[in-house]
Amino acid sequence: MKAQIVIIGDELLVGRIQDTNTQVIAKWLGAQGFELTQVTITSDRPESLLHCLTKALEGSDLVLTTGGLGPTEDDITKQIIAKLAGTKLEKNEEAIRLAKLHYGRIDKDWDQQTNSYHLIPQGVEPVLNPAGLAPGLSLAKDGKLLLSAPGVPRELKAMLEGPFIELLERHFPKRINDHQVMTIRTFGTPEEKIFFEMMPNLWQELSHEGKVSSLPQILGVDIHLSFRGSPQDQIAMTEKWQKRLKGSPLEEHIWSYEFKSIEEVVLEKAREKDLKIALAESCTGGLVANRLTNISGSSSHFIGGVVAYANEVKQGVLKVKEDSLREYGAVSEVVATEMAEGVLNVLESDVSLSLTGIAGPGGGSEYKPVGTVCIGTANKKLAEAKTYLYRGDRTFLKRRFSEVGLHRLRKIIEKY
Amino acid sequence: MKAQIVIIGDELLVGRIQDTNTQVIAKWLGAQGFELTQVTITSDRPESLLHCLTKALEGSDLVLTTGGLGPTEDDITKQIIAKLAGTKLEKNEEAIRLAKLHYGRIDKDWDQQTNSYHLIPQGVEPVLNPAGLAPGLSLAKDGKLLLSAPGVPRELKAMLEGPFIELLERHFPKRINDHQVMTIRTFGTPEEKIFFEMMPNLWQELSHEGKVSSLPQILGVDIHLSFRGSPQDQIAMTEKWQKRLKGSPLEEHIWSYEFKSIEEVVLEKAREKDLKIALAESCTGGLVANRLTNISGSSSHFIGGVVAYANEVKQGVLKVKEDSLREYGAVSEVVATEMAEGVLNVLESDVSLSLTGIAGPGGGSEYKPVGTVCIGTANKKLAEAKTYLYRGDRTFLKRRFSEVGLHRLRKIIEKY
Repeated sequence: MKAQIVIIGDELLVGRIQDTNTQVIAKWLGAQGFELTQVTITSDRPESLLHCLTKALEGSDLVLTTGGLGPTEDDITKQIIAKLAGTKLEKNEEAIRLAKLHYGRIDKDWDQQTNSYHLIPQGVEPVLNPAGLAPGLSLAKDGKLLLSAPGVPRELKAMLEGPFIELLERHFPKRINDHQVMTIRTFGTPEEKIFFEMMPNLWQELSHEGKVSSLPQILGVDIHLSFRGSPQDQIAMTEKWQKRLKGSPLEEHIWSYEFKSIEEVVLEKAREKDLKIALAESCTGGLVANRLTNISGSSSHFIGGVVAYANEVKQGVLKVKEDSLREYGAVSEVVATEMAEGVLNVLESDVSLSLTGIAGPGGGSEYKPVGTVCIGTANKKLAEAKTYLYRGDRTFLKRRFSEVGLHRLRKIIEKY
Repeated sequence: MKAQIVIIGDELLVGRIQDTNTQVIAKWLGAQGFELTQVTITSDRPESLLHCLTKALEGSDLVLTTGGLGPTEDDITKQIIAKLAGTKLEKNEEAIRLAKLHYGRIDKDWDQQTNSYHLIPQGVEPVLNPAGLAPGLSLAKDGKLLLSAPGVPRELKAMLEGPFIELLERHFPKRINDHQVMTIRTFGTPEEKIFFEMMPNLWQELSHEGKVSSLPQILGVDIHLSFRGSPQDQIAMTEKWQKRLKGSPLEEHIWSYEFKSIEEVVLEKAREKDLKIALAESCTGGLVANRLTNISGSSSHFIGGVVAYANEVKQGVLKVKEDSLREYGAVSEVVATEMAEGVLNVLESDVSLSLTGIAGPGGGSEYKPVGTVCIGTANKKLAEAKTYLYRGDRTFLKRRFSEVGLHRLRKIIEKY
């Protein structure tokens, strides 16, 4: 069954905010057995929204739209859905019940003077909003379903997790999810090298199983294989390809057969060996710690870190030697090694990672250009560091540095 | 002049990755004087892409498409643009020059056996890729322009910054940018309260100036006013509204009249007063430090932080008292205060911020549910803390905690 998303997003169209809802809805649709074929971001001009929703409904079984449900004048979704339903807004008892419930949760009264949340197009169902004030909407028409949710990410998520699943079960009770994906995550070799030099028949071989795509990531390449089958088929497919690629030139570059992040893999491996991790970050400024702590349960093996942005912090807290800083500079393998050792000792961890580099735009020199990073690792026996050079802007470089740092951390944990 | 974006994004449609290109292109289009009216994300099925590009060209002067330019079999953009141009692929001398140039940068040879980068649709111009291997494409047709760039964010950015600006200047030499936006950023009061209680005429008043929209952020509400005018009109509009809102009930909630992030504002204020900032993060796990260090030049006033995830780190590095941890628990105002004081002393900063809370999903209790956060601040004279409670999932809570923490930091810097 096919689905489309229509996002009302004036703020997205002027580039003020970053859309995060598409990914959330896309994952949810996949899990619910729908194939997402198109996403459209449109303005809150009534004619544009009407046009986009009409087109989306023509091509799919389910359309999910976000935004335009609030109480202010730029909130036009209800009017447009009335047009699609061919009806007018009218007082709706369920909407009144929901408004009182939603406002009651924040200890406020709601009545018909508060706003027009009680007016709903005839034939349209108001939907519980578990995390906000504006109700969602549901319109069933010609065997298709149009669901409308607020654009606020937290409210959208809450509707996807509860009320919308119930609506799908009511309208599409027989759907099954037979769409499977296997992901081969690789690190340290470019796309062209994989498919044209290392494994020239890989693409064709994989194509016998399903639809192949290759996605260069911030570092490394993901190879996706989409195919129809059951979750059991998915497991079998992964086992088959793990066997097939064993001993191949690609093997040493593969770090996961699942779509896991490197921070998840690092924490899993630390859990397997029961190791405590500490970080000493300079140029990444807390990004590596932030990535690790985004994972639930990270506190059992990530104990903490020091963001040593100023040299005084490197010396005072991490015990980096003044001489090393003076002689080799803050961005050096010597200092990176001392940072890794220092944080291991001060925080009493089993393994540690350090990063010191130049994320730019300022601070580069001929010998140490912007994009240079020295990455150190330590365990109780050995501390060492390596230098890397990447290109990109500040946030991109921070991201790349953190990525390669996490892979270094993975490797010292694997070897522990 | 109107523009649309068409993104080839199978990985986006299955929710595997987060789209970041839309925001980058949207900002760029605005700066180049284009109004972005629609964004479409489609799959790499040839008929879908052809349909989306055709529709996008019908409704706009400029269409920018990303993805599908690489060397593998799922890269179909070139074929589709050939269909739009009504021509066939042929050997292109400029494309050969570019291929040799692009591969030369990574010390590799390119020849016609490497891949088919030398084949370009007749009437289509290959475009320099300053940061990658695949060339961009440019098709001028019926006074409209179609630009095609790789989907890799770094390569896209490099093309937007250089080659695509040149192409716009060649094809649309007379365009001017008369689209202005004023943003009133508020904190600490909901949308409904602003427009229905505090300032019931604000929306209507603003509407006399242009198009108003209201966007609830992760904490606080942004009010945007879009209007036609020069950059001077923009300054005048802001001054007018700053005066108008002075003394209004909204004033104390407004923290910026520009679209700046709270981390930028914090660093600006620290710069004005020449204060050094240090952080002690538990539940946010480095997120606040990461946000501050995303800003270029942050190193002059952010000296560093301690990610004190484990209690041992709170005690060992930040000198939080064992008694306080035992008596009040790690998530308490007492511990938050000691963390803020501790990091101020250990890192020798002028001001500090601490956060200790429960981001979930585990770790909550009846008295301290998931979403509880104690936020401490300190300067050389005073350390204090306050408790907040929010709802949401782990990454959302981390984000909210960091947001309210940065606002607390802004306030103690303002008062310093």
